[in-house]
Amino acid sequence: MAEPWFETTHKLRYNDCDPAGHVNNAVYSTMAEAGRTDLMLAAGIYRPDTAYAMVIVRLEIDFKAEMTWPGDVLIATAVSRIGTKSIHMRQVIRSNGKDCAHALSILAAIDKETRRAIPLDGDWHARFAPWTLPA
Amino acid sequence: MAEPWFETTHKLRYNDCDPAGHVNNAVYSTMAEAGRTDLMLAAGIYRPDTAYAMVIVRLEIDFKAEMTWPGDVLIATAVSRIGTKSIHMRQVIRSNGKDCAHALSILAAIDKETRRAIPLDGDWHARFAPWTLPA
Amino acid sequence: MAEPWFETTHKLRYNDCDPAGHVNNAVYSTMAEAGRTDLMLAAGIYRPDTAYAMVIVRLEIDFKAEMTWPGDVLIATAVSRIGTKSIHMRQVIRSNGKDCAHALSILAAIDKETRRAIPLDGDWHARFAPWTLPA
Amino acid sequence: MAEPWFETTHKLRYNDCDPAGHVNNAVYSTMAEAGRTDLMLAAGIYRPDTAYAMVIVRLEIDFKAEMTWPGDVLIATAVSRIGTKSIHMRQVIRSNGKDCAHALSILAAIDKETRRAIPLDGDWHARFAPWTLPA
Repeated sequence: MAEPWFETTHKLRYNDCDPAGHVNNAVYSTMAEAGRTDLMLAAGIYRPDTAYAMVIVRLEIDFKAEMTWPGDVLIATAVSRIGTKSIHMRQVIRSNGKDCAHALSILAAIDKETRRAIPLDGDWHARFAPWTLPA
Repeated sequence: MAEPWFETTHKLRYNDCDPAGHVNNAVYSTMAEAGRTDLMLAAGIYRPDTAYAMVIVRLEIDFKAEMTWPGDVLIATAVSRIGTKSIHMRQVIRSNGKDCAHALSILAAIDKETRRAIPLDGDWHARFAPWTLPA
Repeated sequence: MAEPWFETTHKLRYNDCDPAGHVNNAVYSTMAEAGRTDLMLAAGIYRPDTAYAMVIVRLEIDFKAEMTWPGDVLIATAVSRIGTKSIHMRQVIRSNGKDCAHALSILAAIDKETRRAIPLDGDWHARFAPWTLPA
Repeated sequence: MAEPWFETTHKLRYNDCDPAGHVNNAVYSTMAEAGRTDLMLAAGIYRPDTAYAMVIVRLEIDFKAEMTWPGDVLIATAVSRIGTKSIHMRQVIRSNGKDCAHALSILAAIDKETRRAIPLDGDWHARFAPWTLPA
């Protein structure tokens, strides 16, 4: 997918699949997380010296198609909104040439000590700018 | 929680936790699935001779609080709606005496051969009746 | 199993199973870890203020029988040897009334700073005494 | 590693890590499985029409070094012995430029109906020949 979508590819493992013979739905959550974390690594959000940690507040997944092993998964992620205390990311999870899921992840940055959400100022907008969808 | 909520308890494992020191968000999906599958076992939905398989169509999770190891997880599940081709289940995931997540799972029954959703007739309503929320 | 075996029970989850329809072999590793960690919780080894962390050095698993969902897993663990820098634990993993695996886990305690194994003095022997097999 | 070692690369995921901040030991089992299954895909062992299924009989892992996220894992696998009813595979698991584990996996082929090990004739030797270590 074109800019500003951030793309990363992960590889399915045999035990991602369940007795139904397809990738278990919890692995879709893991793939959504893989997309978010890889984007945040690219954005310089994950660093050992930060006073904040990123947490997920809400997750929505629409399951569109089964994923099967063996295969790769392409996760495309883009920031759709940065509020005062939350970041919305849209995600498309693809495998075998088709959309397997659409997801919305809502994140917050919490203070590592107080465990409370911190305000998201202009710095946060700047960090995510390359991967932010037009308003 | 009182009837018609179906309750099941699962036990956290050390590796359910991630480097943030709390239970990883994908395990919330697994706990939601554990609640659904345990309810469906109770309802007699999982049997080897069925022509259908249950699949998840949409998942929404609101993360309310961190879960930490060691500990148990109580998953309460109730059917909130049975449509012509989908079943809605509301779920509450509790640990350490507090609500850690609220979830909505939308399921379909698919024909194992055609992989297409089958209509949900009165039998399905009857099977889920003990765990169905009043309209 | 009788003393000095430490027993703990965990519950299988639907997605512990793989496309072969049985519990995936990596979950046997997780169950072995669940037995070890639950024993170490009982022994007071896991505390936030320790300068050491427990790590696994070697794992041997003999797979005796398939485990299937739904079901519980009973993990029996006993310390078979405490060397100068390693702790050997024997484990029996049971489900559905039969031995599904025998395991040997060799652990070390490492200094959290240096990441090097620390010597295991008499205190360690005392902590594990209730669950140590006779020499 | 040189022939006859079969190499495959997998990508670590954030939730492969546990609260110790490193990749959980059960993921080493999963990586060993990923190496075996990718080799067996290459060898044409996994096909829907087979009357047999591959199962693991024994697993030995020597943990040499911590693996950390983000990163890739290189799994090198070679057949070290084919007995009358078992296949031995040696494995080296590498990440960040160092050996993180050495493993031995002993497999059997079981009849899908009887669940009993089948004899491994010359065909099996031929299938694995490209990845079999010299005697």
